[in-house]
Amino acid sequence: MSDNLLQHINNPSDLRQLDEVQLPQVAKELRDFIIDVVSVKEGHLGASLGVVELTIALHYVFNTPNDLLVWDVGHQAYGHKILTERRENFHTNRQLNGISGFPKRGESVYDTFGVGHSSTSISAALGMAIASNLKGDIEKHHIAVIGDASIASGMAFEGLNHAGVTDANLLVILNDNAIGIDPSVGALKKYLTAVKEGKNPKQNNIIKSLNFDYSGPIDGHDIPSIIKELKRLKKVKGPKFLHIVTTKGKGLQQAEVNQVQYHAPGKFDAITGNIIPKSEENLPPKYQDVFGLTILDLAKANEKIIGITPAMPSGSSLKFMMDAFPKRAFDVGIAEQHAVTLSAGMATQGMVVFCNIYSTFLQRAYDQVIHDVALQNLPVIFCLDRAGLVGEDGATHHGVFDLAYLRCIPNMIIYSPLNEIALQNILYTAQLGLNHPIAIRYPRGRGQFVDWQFQQFGNYEKIEIGKANCLKKGTKVAVLSNGTIGNTVTLALAKIKNQEDFAHYDFAFVKPLDEKLLHTIFKEFKTIITVEDGVIKGGFGTAILEFSAKNNYTSILKTLGVPDEFIEHGTVNELQQYCSIDVKSLSTIFSNY
Amino acid sequence: MSDNLLQHINNPSDLRQLDEVQLPQVAKELRDFIIDVVSVKEGHLGASLGVVELTIALHYVFNTPNDLLVWDVGHQAYGHKILTERRENFHTNRQLNGISGFPKRGESVYDTFGVGHSSTSISAALGMAIASNLKGDIEKHHIAVIGDASIASGMAFEGLNHAGVTDANLLVILNDNAIGIDPSVGALKKYLTAVKEGKNPKQNNIIKSLNFDYSGPIDGHDIPSIIKELKRLKKVKGPKFLHIVTTKGKGLQQAEVNQVQYHAPGKFDAITGNIIPKSEENLPPKYQDVFGLTILDLAKANEKIIGITPAMPSGSSLKFMMDAFPKRAFDVGIAEQHAVTLSAGMATQGMVVFCNIYSTFLQRAYDQVIHDVALQNLPVIFCLDRAGLVGEDGATHHGVFDLAYLRCIPNMIIYSPLNEIALQNILYTAQLGLNHPIAIRYPRGRGQFVDWQFQQFGNYEKIEIGKANCLKKGTKVAVLSNGTIGNTVTLALAKIKNQEDFAHYDFAFVKPLDEKLLHTIFKEFKTIITVEDGVIKGGFGTAILEFSAKNNYTSILKTLGVPDEFIEHGTVNELQQYCSIDVKSLSTIFSNY
Repeated sequence: MSDNLLQHINNPSDLRQLDEVQLPQVAKELRDFIIDVVSVKEGHLGASLGVVELTIALHYVFNTPNDLLVWDVGHQAYGHKILTERRENFHTNRQLNGISGFPKRGESVYDTFGVGHSSTSISAALGMAIASNLKGDIEKHHIAVIGDASIASGMAFEGLNHAGVTDANLLVILNDNAIGIDPSVGALKKYLTAVKEGKNPKQNNIIKSLNFDYSGPIDGHDIPSIIKELKRLKKVKGPKFLHIVTTKGKGLQQAEVNQVQYHAPGKFDAITGNIIPKSEENLPPKYQDVFGLTILDLAKANEKIIGITPAMPSGSSLKFMMDAFPKRAFDVGIAEQHAVTLSAGMATQGMVVFCNIYSTFLQRAYDQVIHDVALQNLPVIFCLDRAGLVGEDGATHHGVFDLAYLRCIPNMIIYSPLNEIALQNILYTAQLGLNHPIAIRYPRGRGQFVDWQFQQFGNYEKIEIGKANCLKKGTKVAVLSNGTIGNTVTLALAKIKNQEDFAHYDFAFVKPLDEKLLHTIFKEFKTIITVEDGVIKGGFGTAILEFSAKNNYTSILKTLGVPDEFIEHGTVNELQQYCSIDVKSLSTIFSNY
Repeated sequence: MSDNLLQHINNPSDLRQLDEVQLPQVAKELRDFIIDVVSVKEGHLGASLGVVELTIALHYVFNTPNDLLVWDVGHQAYGHKILTERRENFHTNRQLNGISGFPKRGESVYDTFGVGHSSTSISAALGMAIASNLKGDIEKHHIAVIGDASIASGMAFEGLNHAGVTDANLLVILNDNAIGIDPSVGALKKYLTAVKEGKNPKQNNIIKSLNFDYSGPIDGHDIPSIIKELKRLKKVKGPKFLHIVTTKGKGLQQAEVNQVQYHAPGKFDAITGNIIPKSEENLPPKYQDVFGLTILDLAKANEKIIGITPAMPSGSSLKFMMDAFPKRAFDVGIAEQHAVTLSAGMATQGMVVFCNIYSTFLQRAYDQVIHDVALQNLPVIFCLDRAGLVGEDGATHHGVFDLAYLRCIPNMIIYSPLNEIALQNILYTAQLGLNHPIAIRYPRGRGQFVDWQFQQFGNYEKIEIGKANCLKKGTKVAVLSNGTIGNTVTLALAKIKNQEDFAHYDFAFVKPLDEKLLHTIFKEFKTIITVEDGVIKGGFGTAILEFSAKNNYTSILKTLGVPDEFIEHGTVNELQQYCSIDVKSLSTIFSNY
């Protein structure tokens, strides 16, 4: 009978039927369930293991979904999903048409706020709490669960700063495990560590200074303690703050020890925890490693090079440079705004700054790109990893807006390399010194050349800014592609019968455009097709339309890319198929010309 | 001789020749100079008066421009400009081809970082300080001067959080006057007030918790005190924080008493301080007041309406609703990110949220618009004041990117009213309930109808979402305009001879487009001209290009708008002229068809 509790819990009402002493057993089963499924189906692991007890306690004490629970970031919410009517679908996690890897309003009434990007939970829950107050529902509870990496982001501070002067029924729970995806950084982290070690007084701390009722730190794996404290806090009106201490990866020894690796470990043995090695032989390099290895190599020769990442040293592979040049490579935490303006400040002093931010997260620093970098025409080098469709992380994480939102900014150079050689060369070119800021966007995943590191690495060639290239000649239709989707175009063209009709051009630069070549193309071709892995509204294809209109060309133009809707999760190939920019769809489209 | 000091100070080297006891006299002269010029030439007043002593002390103690001084926001930097080689040009402040109202790198070596938007100074100065460290220049000082409203913004916290764990030679000076443009708000403000009143211990405060060497609060108008403390701090290595207390508007009694009004008072009597009244008779209403009065009126009938502004209650005229419904209208401080996600949280609970943010400042919350509002399709109503060219505030403040950066976001409705009646009606329509978020953009300045408030106010008409209107019929050329620039088009068309050739359509909705009407137009007209007061790259005209390409139309399209460069300061009319979208330029262009 001991493993029978979880299977009878369909939703928190069932959980609340149990006696409190049964909850540790539920925790064990829930943890095992997460491990069993994630070990086979992959996904985020460590974060959810760390909050198993908290998740159970929250749904046990509070009357969810009437009480409103917001998970920050949301990759720790697997236990929440399993306890809230999604146990039986949990094996479809992150798959096309399956459940999302993050809380999502459309998926469940228990998912009160869609998340994915960090540090939104306090603002969202405060908004809900103020709304409840206005509706006269002063008994309803509003809970934001936020990690110590996320709470150090400026947006979270803005939420705390506002909440502290309201009488909103808001409970912020700090899940302090000293790590986000990589270990947390910054002065606040240092301070929280001192608090946990008893070195800072509880009665006069930062959180109390912001007018919160502070309690903790308490052990976040001790269910009775958490329940006792949550029950006490239920009776406290106004903004409250509970500091709990947890261990990321709790309950799976290897995940506790190797927290970065077990954030999202891929497949592993559910019993031993051993990661099942993927064969990396005969695979091209990941783009992130092309960036990481190249900037490291360039930094050896150019001492003005600086690397900056907001909390993604592993994901961006800036860690290589951080290990080799710790004084010149910085993880600034989840602080995209600061990262960009810090880069601008450094650039004013002649440093060559590579600011590496995932495409989707640069949205967090849009004003800083415009106001602090582009307006001052500072030659900051933005490296936008995870550009285009990112696959399983889904709608919150696709890097599909960047071409559109960057293209309207004066002074910006925008470049999407066709492959890892082009990425290496543009990194080399950028550090030679540019007259403008540049955004270099490249996708999640791997490049084209198995032997890149042996054959091409370090053989740098300077790229001429604004120059496009002809990849294939043709007679009737010109296909213009931007970035790595060009390789998909090449494969699609290889599959069709009327290949000789199609010319193919690599327009890596979306800005400035190669207008000279465009004039040639528009004079030669009556039909032009653009292909990109970003939104068609405002992106690369649109830039070609603007060129055409400006010059009164009359060629027929078709723009292919991501349609004007949010794209859900699935494999990259499935999503490209949905957008008709995979090999098969493209070859079908081409065949019809 | 007593008033002769300032005229001999060309730059800080001259200042540093003086004896310290002469500095109060310099302060008096500098303050009088600012008052004299601003009283006639207009501009920001109160902020600069408040930091006269600090400005003098900084340039006296530090070796500017070798030591690097960054002013946050920068509207307090008039004294700085006058002391750094711009006294004789100061009368050109904010005028076309004159000096900028904000520090600007291209203008002076003393302006180390261009500013305008708030809360960037700590990140920028930290970047400079780290760069100096790396270059081995460990004696150089890096100073960020930031107000208490600006330091409460998340970005400033991110800078502090990073700086606190560096050994950077950074001095952050908090200019605490308890007001930004409007009075400061939030828990941090409350805390700082308690610090000033001696109610909080200095030894264990928030700033110290973030690992800064904290000193203060000291009187920011007492030059000897400031100089003494700055000299001490020069010898302290690492991140330092000086808390000074000042009075905004210091030295002009009325400016001290009416701090909001004297932030930028327009023309006034330099002796008495009396504002010279502008005749408002026979002037149409300001768009901000149309918003403010209308939302107040609508809120009386619809209790679900909530108003939110990040630190612009006066500028947005949300103050009307804040006065009448203090529980339903919120100034959240300089916290655009929080403002948007707070709105999203409220919207999940069925509230009708008007989130009023200047167009240029919505750039600060771009990710929140995408990730927290549009992705979840929450019907938040964004009111973007100061859209288009804003005039004298210049390059940092023009609201010209919004159409381009919003148009690529799925689910968004984008509407630019033609006039105050249309603005009132779209506000009315939005609160009836929409299925999507909407961005309503309107300009700085005044509308079209002197008698709006008497004739039209409150006579609401529901607007059909996506519908465009024909303003004028014509035979050869169709002019499609978006927003209030349509009135300029009307005036331009009235001036030309071949008027009957031109049809004119008001495409207030940039998204969704009125495709039905567009089909009619494209079938009827061989030449189509679009006019907008935003960037032509990616904006309204581009949307029409995309429609045309998608439907294989072959009409000749010309897009008029703001070119792909940063536009400097000047009057709106001068800047429209520069962009060829003023009445005269448009009529010349039209005449050539």
